[in-house]
Amino acid sequence: MSPSNIRELIRSGEITGPTAGMSKGYTQANLAILKKEYAYDFLLFCQRNPKSCPLVDVTDIGSFVPRSIAQNADIRKDIPKYRIYKDGIYVEEVLDITDYWEDDMVAFLIGCSFTFETPLLDAGIPIRHIEENCNVPMYKTNIACVKAGVFEGPTVVSMRPMSSADAIRATQITSRFPGVHGAPIHIGDPRTIGITDLSKPDFGDSVTIKDGEVPVFWACGVTPQAVAMQSKPSIMITHAPGCMFISDLKDEKLSVF
Amino acid sequence: MSPSNIRELIRSGEITGPTAGMSKGYTQANLAILKKEYAYDFLLFCQRNPKSCPLVDVTDIGSFVPRSIAQNADIRKDIPKYRIYKDGIYVEEVLDITDYWEDDMVAFLIGCSFTFETPLLDAGIPIRHIEENCNVPMYKTNIACVKAGVFEGPTVVSMRPMSSADAIRATQITSRFPGVHGAPIHIGDPRTIGITDLSKPDFGDSVTIKDGEVPVFWACGVTPQAVAMQSKPSIMITHAPGCMFISDLKDEKLSVF
Repeated sequence: MSPSNIRELIRSGEITGPTAGMSKGYTQANLAILKKEYAYDFLLFCQRNPKSCPLVDVTDIGSFVPRSIAQNADIRKDIPKYRIYKDGIYVEEVLDITDYWEDDMVAFLIGCSFTFETPLLDAGIPIRHIEENCNVPMYKTNIACVKAGVFEGPTVVSMRPMSSADAIRATQITSRFPGVHGAPIHIGDPRTIGITDLSKPDFGDSVTIKDGEVPVFWACGVTPQAVAMQSKPSIMITHAPGCMFISDLKDEKLSVF
Repeated sequence: MSPSNIRELIRSGEITGPTAGMSKGYTQANLAILKKEYAYDFLLFCQRNPKSCPLVDVTDIGSFVPRSIAQNADIRKDIPKYRIYKDGIYVEEVLDITDYWEDDMVAFLIGCSFTFETPLLDAGIPIRHIEENCNVPMYKTNIACVKAGVFEGPTVVSMRPMSSADAIRATQITSRFPGVHGAPIHIGDPRTIGITDLSKPDFGDSVTIKDGEVPVFWACGVTPQAVAMQSKPSIMITHAPGCMFISDLKDEKLSVF
């Protein structure tokens, strides 16, 4: 089904769960909505940390249409499930944020690793969390993001275990997508980047690491959400985990060659 | 000489002219300084138009240190020559902008094609404006930038004539540098992008196009300056043409593979 058909089903409440695998080949995006007073610092934070915060669209102030990636979408209704945070504290999960929308809000759409997982799978590289039908494991690292205004914090990474040969090929493939996290930021010993126990991810689920496999780490789009939350904005709205925004943008448009 | 040595000579007034060829292998950048009231729109404009406005650094509000690319630099003094624009009108050229600096100014450093010209030359691709010892020809096109707040206008391109085989190789090479304009945006007939006479560039100098050569066009860092000027900000400060900021960032750091 086309992205706009899926978005219609979401808007009408027929789809309320995770979007993985839907409209294959089209870019899915993380969401962070903030009020104007935080927008400059957040935009600058994304500019300074492009590997973890690859923006695929930023709406005009007060506009709920992510025009450059989905002209007929409404960001208040077209995501299956949202999370509302007030002063950095999780308040509730809702299917529609029309009642929360304010005229000075800005929606930030941040690229997601679904975009590069498709070409990895096409290259025959197994992706463990897909095989095990769970969420990708994510970890806070000791790699500090570059601060911007009120926003600062550690880089969050996603991890995929694979053979060493596949890690090399995966590095090549994901290098083509600098606009969606790009190449890995670490391969091998997790302690080097401050992760003590791979079986206890900070977000998502733990996955099996087979003998001879190395963990491969990519900067993760959860980073900007986690960092923004820490600064306790009066209100912040995000997508619920796994329930992404499906855009009209072809994944291949994000490859640089 | 190292970038910091060159910047010292600039700061002390011993270098006051073009920086082409200095500290080879290190990134040079275009400069646009705006007051805070314009900074959000300008930052968003750059985010929405990454091919013409590849940001390599944005200073904190009021800070004259482009920390991520040159920790010991002072953006008010370390460029050979600056241009001052008031309400969109060129006022004067100065060697130091300390007297113009205000506490709510933000300096935007924008990547420049010098970064990808080095690997083009290394690949044996002749660059005509270097051969003819003049400035690269630049043209306004009919390709509209994506608007952001008060900022809108046409994309400006730089043009390099070369053989068709070299155009293919140049496309491959510059694709490695999405953070510095990336691949060309047009090859061939200039009328397709609204350019009627290649011998009359809007900025820079005209260069010889030999028999059998095709013009190859890249999005140009003059775009954001030209666009910002059109919106007539109360004050805007830029580098003077050819007099760039020399950073400590190695060009190769900007390649994605």
